[in-house]
Amino acid sequence: MLSKIGQDGSLSDRVAEEVVRYIQDNRLKVGDRLPNETELAAALNVGRSTIREAMKQLANSNVVSIERGRGTFVKDRPGQVDDPLGFRFANDKKKLLVDLIELRLIVEPPIAALAAERRTQEDILRIRDAQAEVERMVALGVNHGAADAHFHATVAEATQNSVSSSIVPVLNRSVDLVISISGQSSLDRTMQYHRDICQAIARGDAKAAEATMRAHLEDHRNFIFAVFGRTSIG
Amino acid sequence: MLSKIGQDGSLSDRVAEEVVRYIQDNRLKVGDRLPNETELAAALNVGRSTIREAMKQLANSNVVSIERGRGTFVKDRPGQVDDPLGFRFANDKKKLLVDLIELRLIVEPPIAALAAERRTQEDILRIRDAQAEVERMVALGVNHGAADAHFHATVAEATQNSVSSSIVPVLNRSVDLVISISGQSSLDRTMQYHRDICQAIARGDAKAAEATMRAHLEDHRNFIFAVFGRTSIG
Repeated sequence: MLSKIGQDGSLSDRVAEEVVRYIQDNRLKVGDRLPNETELAAALNVGRSTIREAMKQLANSNVVSIERGRGTFVKDRPGQVDDPLGFRFANDKKKLLVDLIELRLIVEPPIAALAAERRTQEDILRIRDAQAEVERMVALGVNHGAADAHFHATVAEATQNSVSSSIVPVLNRSVDLVISISGQSSLDRTMQYHRDICQAIARGDAKAAEATMRAHLEDHRNFIFAVFGRTSIG
Repeated sequence: MLSKIGQDGSLSDRVAEEVVRYIQDNRLKVGDRLPNETELAAALNVGRSTIREAMKQLANSNVVSIERGRGTFVKDRPGQVDDPLGFRFANDKKKLLVDLIELRLIVEPPIAALAAERRTQEDILRIRDAQAEVERMVALGVNHGAADAHFHATVAEATQNSVSSSIVPVLNRSVDLVISISGQSSLDRTMQYHRDICQAIARGDAKAAEATMRAHLEDHRNFIFAVFGRTSIG
């Protein structure tokens, strides 16, 4: 199960790798508890302080969460870090926004088409719930950025493609930033686009889902251009 | 420049954030050296052990590299981790390969078109060099996976879109795995497709670049289907 650790390289690095392999081999799921420090130390033949350091490393890279007094648990989407592409290091945030919407326009319309072809009944419910949540946030007048990103994530999940489920949320990180500047201007149009996307996916109409997602994101891109201007590239 | 750190939350987390802000504010570039432990400890009013822990955290998330005796340096593509979408946690590697090639077929053809529209003379040279390197590896009979992924990365960079430059290498992580199974079967076709993509981009022909990239990846996908079978979805 857990293989013993040798003597070369950084010990905690290799212990961290062993723990990752343990999670994979045993197909542990979100929220599953890992063996405790004492058990792991014995199984891997290393000290508890090494286990502790390895676990800190894994917590930093979003593989586990350490809950004091309760234990160490597998995280949702293990290994997916908060800002996986290092967007916070972009020196020019305007260019980043323009670049992001350009990529979303490439990726999300075909994803909406696949979603319409492959969605399950549960997917349809999840997409509808996500849109209802966006409308609730908008009605309350609070920031709907996270709810909006979640709507697009549920569409991506309906493709049954694990890579699209991972990538769309990353590309949607920018939504909050745009909303913080845009205020309420394009909200009515956004709501209508979302509803139309929902319906096209629900009735399995791939062409309409793709076209409506494209129109929605083009509208969003035009808004970004209006607020920030095009870059020298656009 | 560096703001002093208060008393709440995990100290090393906040010190790590301060260091990230320092890198951003001072627009430090790849290979730039950070202030040493003593300087940072004084500037942030924390102990050297806290600085050390924060730096380990930043090294884990690929922001800095710690070189013993030389100092701490900003890494290339700071914040971009090795496996940002957690692919190593995928339980079904076959499905992951099928999902990856499906996403590459969505993303890379339009990216090749943008590359043809926006490439500089330097981009053309880089793409040609990358293809020459693939041919050299193939001629030597050694694994050309990294060189192949680098070819696709140079095309993505020619779009001048920072997000496409970040995403394409992530989607190309699977190339090695496919190559390790495929052996030499589709090498001649791959070489020809690469050369045609090069030429289309060099002469600024967006349509040909897009169509050739699509044909190349469809060929690759058909190969994956032949080796692994389609999933229930495909």
